[in-house]
Amino acid sequence: MKLQNIKIVMVETTHPGNIGAAARAMNNMQIEQLVLVNPQCPIGERAYARASGANRILDDRTTVNTLTEAVADCELVVGTSARLRSLAWPELTPQSLAEKTMALPDTQNVAVVFGREHSGLTNEELKHCHYTVTIPTNPQFSSLNVASAIQVITYELYKLAPSVDAPGNASPSEPLASSAEMEGYFQHLEQVLISTGFLNEDNPRQMMKRLRRLYMRAQPDKNEINILRGILNAVEKYKK
Amino acid sequence: MKLQNIKIVMVETTHPGNIGAAARAMNNMQIEQLVLVNPQCPIGERAYARASGANRILDDRTTVNTLTEAVADCELVVGTSARLRSLAWPELTPQSLAEKTMALPDTQNVAVVFGREHSGLTNEELKHCHYTVTIPTNPQFSSLNVASAIQVITYELYKLAPSVDAPGNASPSEPLASSAEMEGYFQHLEQVLISTGFLNEDNPRQMMKRLRRLYMRAQPDKNEINILRGILNAVEKYKK
Repeated sequence: MKLQNIKIVMVETTHPGNIGAAARAMNNMQIEQLVLVNPQCPIGERAYARASGANRILDDRTTVNTLTEAVADCELVVGTSARLRSLAWPELTPQSLAEKTMALPDTQNVAVVFGREHSGLTNEELKHCHYTVTIPTNPQFSSLNVASAIQVITYELYKLAPSVDAPGNASPSEPLASSAEMEGYFQHLEQVLISTGFLNEDNPRQMMKRLRRLYMRAQPDKNEINILRGILNAVEKYKK
Repeated sequence: MKLQNIKIVMVETTHPGNIGAAARAMNNMQIEQLVLVNPQCPIGERAYARASGANRILDDRTTVNTLTEAVADCELVVGTSARLRSLAWPELTPQSLAEKTMALPDTQNVAVVFGREHSGLTNEELKHCHYTVTIPTNPQFSSLNVASAIQVITYELYKLAPSVDAPGNASPSEPLASSAEMEGYFQHLEQVLISTGFLNEDNPRQMMKRLRRLYMRAQPDKNEINILRGILNAVEKYKK
């Protein structure tokens, strides 16, 4: 895995200074892909001032409307979270996130997703994530500034990255399924589960969430997802 | 070593927002002693806004005129540095700084010193440090925002800190000499070296710097410093 294959995704950020400071933090750590999901502020003078020279990262940013688009080409998607949730998602430390990322072959893409300044990521958004990552903090004062959180996470990634001159990772294993492939599977699965009567169409959410968590944790490769899709196809054909 | 025994020292900071952001970062990581050396800005509304609730750390800050005062009661003083220097100081990574700090007994005090936004610490200021610590970065864009640097360093310290409920470290060894005791020794040493004719009184700097580096690296305990002082006393008496 190379640092160039990592994206930082900021969801509905409201302060341009935080986006600029994030660009600076990313540039410090040689991570250059910034994706903004539906930003709630202009990216102008205030953002560039705080970027403190990391202009190229702001210039080259991508802006999209939904998290789904932002992570579609990524094989590993990790959401940052300070909150405890009722149905806990598999949780990484910043260091184990870096280990997991750096163990991936060079052909894969990784997204680390940072939520709104005041409310973080929604449960709906976290469903797109294979894992959450939580920066260990003072339990009485756990909310980091979003750019500071990006600094900590990118620092851990940079620390473990192979140096530029080092030979790339070998890619012995089958590439993982992309986020788009996973979403395609989950939609297909839900549809099949409803049509088979397993799921109540009016309230399928909690069950689908549990299933997503299971499959996301497994990190299927492309071949395995094809097999899973093949099973769904077979179920559908069987019904007919 | 407890997190309560660690001070963050900011030297001649010019942006109040950075001081506020530093307070927030410290509070996130349960490090509460903020010392400002000759700050170049008022600590008012802008600082408190960026502190985002970490008001107590700003309220309880200490302000002093010189770095010497700031670190006088500290047994381990570490200066942050992005620059390569001709006469390199012993260098730590953020992680090895945390390991070294957490290995100290609970009775010791540690200062981590952060320099000016644009020029860092002077060589004169670095002489007060046992070590420098450098955050690994993109060699083409190595200057971190000072509050982001504080976030990374305090994060590494927090990660390795014993949890609040854990029993404190035993203090089996003699406590280390404080910074004030080290300075007392260096002054005494320089005076003796000059009076013995070893040092050229007009230009003792480079030699003293090398000697400081040597003794700082050794991290003498109080007992050892007493012995060293005793030797100097003996040399002085011998001359008479």
